[in-house]
Amino acid sequence: MKGIRALVFDVFGTLVDWRGSIAREAREVLAPHGVSLDWPAFADAWRAQYQPAMEEVRSGKIPFSKLDVLHRRNLEVVLTQFAIGDLDEATKVHLNLAWHRLDAWPDVTPGLTRLRERYRLAPCSNGNISLMVDLARRNGFPWDAILGAEVARDYKPKAIVYQSAADAFDCVPGEVLMVAAHSNDLAAAAQAGLRTAFIARPDEKGPGRGESRASVVVDVSADGLVDLAQRLRS
Amino acid sequence: MKGIRALVFDVFGTLVDWRGSIAREAREVLAPHGVSLDWPAFADAWRAQYQPAMEEVRSGKIPFSKLDVLHRRNLEVVLTQFAIGDLDEATKVHLNLAWHRLDAWPDVTPGLTRLRERYRLAPCSNGNISLMVDLARRNGFPWDAILGAEVARDYKPKAIVYQSAADAFDCVPGEVLMVAAHSNDLAAAAQAGLRTAFIARPDEKGPGRGESRASVVVDVSADGLVDLAQRLRS
Repeated sequence: MKGIRALVFDVFGTLVDWRGSIAREAREVLAPHGVSLDWPAFADAWRAQYQPAMEEVRSGKIPFSKLDVLHRRNLEVVLTQFAIGDLDEATKVHLNLAWHRLDAWPDVTPGLTRLRERYRLAPCSNGNISLMVDLARRNGFPWDAILGAEVARDYKPKAIVYQSAADAFDCVPGEVLMVAAHSNDLAAAAQAGLRTAFIARPDEKGPGRGESRASVVVDVSADGLVDLAQRLRS
Repeated sequence: MKGIRALVFDVFGTLVDWRGSIAREAREVLAPHGVSLDWPAFADAWRAQYQPAMEEVRSGKIPFSKLDVLHRRNLEVVLTQFAIGDLDEATKVHLNLAWHRLDAWPDVTPGLTRLRERYRLAPCSNGNISLMVDLARRNGFPWDAILGAEVARDYKPKAIVYQSAADAFDCVPGEVLMVAAHSNDLAAAAQAGLRTAFIARPDEKGPGRGESRASVVVDVSADGLVDLAQRLRS
């Protein structure tokens, strides 16, 4: 892996456990309102609205909107699906910001800290800047900058998102390693000229329902970020 | 100063001593090539090309270009002014990146570290993202994100640069405090709706040739960032 100068990261699923965290946050916010339901199923339903909402931006149907705004629209859909009515605005705002309160997988902060000694690091996520800032503060992610969708004004897997992250670090795409737990993200990054690292998160979407190996050719695969740092001899 | 949620900072002159650092770097790079000249005057001459170059972007004459690119164009002008020829490309590239090797005033990192406990922090500079990243690594600036010209794709004092920084932090402009050592920067920030903090840097442009007090109305004035933190009771 010579010639790599910067690492950019997918965040939801690769660095943070969105499913477990959203299930916990939804319960904490909604249970006091008398709501009882299958909390992981609620998280899955909210996440299921994610790609269709971004596709409206990618296709040009709506102008670029921060993921917080799309999450809020999607929340209304999911509340209806689960027949939850009568929530006040402050509760909805707080619930929507559950995406700012996600917990990292245990290897992530130690791995990033080690990788930072040799490489510039940034998220290359579809999450908005303030969401990335809150996750970084919560989990101690040592970012050099916050890159990704909000800077590029479009959503992955559009090539501009990966390429604008490389450009911000004064790198050509081939000098940047995209790190993700999702083969489709890595395929798009490779198509945009970046190099690729797959991180196994087999339980991301529930036990055994994440990817345990890449379904596309990648430059390196690892079991977590500490393992990645070792494989890069960082 | 109630209702402030984020602080954004001018960098050149406010946080870092561009004049002393560029004079030092120019000497270190050029003296081995047999060049001898008034190094602070070289720094001043390079900096004198700064506003005219950005004005070409602001006026729409040229598309947005990173400050590194403008600095390189300006360097060619200054090398001609000082009758310095025959520099190889690698030397010019290294000299141009002198702007990535500027040293902070001594109060800056302790002040930012204290302010970070209460506020989100970002540069709102005309410097590009990679330049800000290198200054942060060199000086230990604890930024939450890198905001400013490259994210806004235009240069201060255009209102969009200040407003896009506020928006990235999910703030209305009045929730953001712009911190700068230059009255014109603060006037533009106030016009864009931000609140303003003036930092005295009387020696920024040479002894006694910086601003020791604001020439416009500001919300708070301080002698440095530790003093600012005290005045904000942070």
